[in-house]
Amino acid sequence: MSSRAKAKGTHYERELVKAFWDAGFGVMRAPTSGGATSRALPDIVAGNGKVYYAIEVKMKKELPIYIREEQVEEIKEFSRRFGAKAFIAVKLPYKEWKFIPLEILSKNCKNYKVGVAEYLKGLKLEDLLGR
Amino acid sequence: MSSRAKAKGTHYERELVKAFWDAGFGVMRAPTSGGATSRALPDIVAGNGKVYYAIEVKMKKELPIYIREEQVEEIKEFSRRFGAKAFIAVKLPYKEWKFIPLEILSKNCKNYKVGVAEYLKGLKLEDLLGR
Repeated sequence: MSSRAKAKGTHYERELVKAFWDAGFGVMRAPTSGGATSRALPDIVAGNGKVYYAIEVKMKKELPIYIREEQVEEIKEFSRRFGAKAFIAVKLPYKEWKFIPLEILSKNCKNYKVGVAEYLKGLKLEDLLGR
Repeated sequence: MSSRAKAKGTHYERELVKAFWDAGFGVMRAPTSGGATSRALPDIVAGNGKVYYAIEVKMKKELPIYIREEQVEEIKEFSRRFGAKAFIAVKLPYKEWKFIPLEILSKNCKNYKVGVAEYLKGLKLEDLLGR
């Protein structure tokens, strides 16, 4: 990814963190490197004492989006342990965020996929914020 | 802090992350920099669907340990939002971890303090892991 694309990704991710914070959640972004462990962590964990979310952010130009099987499995494992609902947060150009539950991802060989069908079933940010 | 002391701190912090993971928790370490926001985050967030912990790690040579008022207040705020119990995890040389609930810290001018009295009231790692 170019450094410009990376900066843009970070910008949108921060925007998302701010939206959760403004809605009363506690929010933490994962360290950018794997850091402490070799286990994949979601990009964002948010909680408000009632509901907990583990969110993997994907800023892409278009669908479909492919995600490595291992990454999805590790985020599932984290979420199962943590008691969080797991989502892929998809940001397409000029579109609102969409939150695709991991359970509805389709599988394509060794990758999970967010295609149009999965994207259209995604939730809106407001759905997660409980508004 | 020297880079050697920093590496040692990181080592112990990872050990703590591993202990929570091995006990079935989902665990996330905070990014080392403030990153997304200027808000202070706890060093570690751990949860298992029943209980959530926000933990600030302090590896020190001796007591008392002073912690900036602002840092404590921000971790309190995060924990209140997130629905987490907040602790200062203290690691003294050759001693087991002790977990001091934020509520029992004493205040000294503009700092919070973990002195001997607070340290002795701290919980053990096993208490947090629910063993």
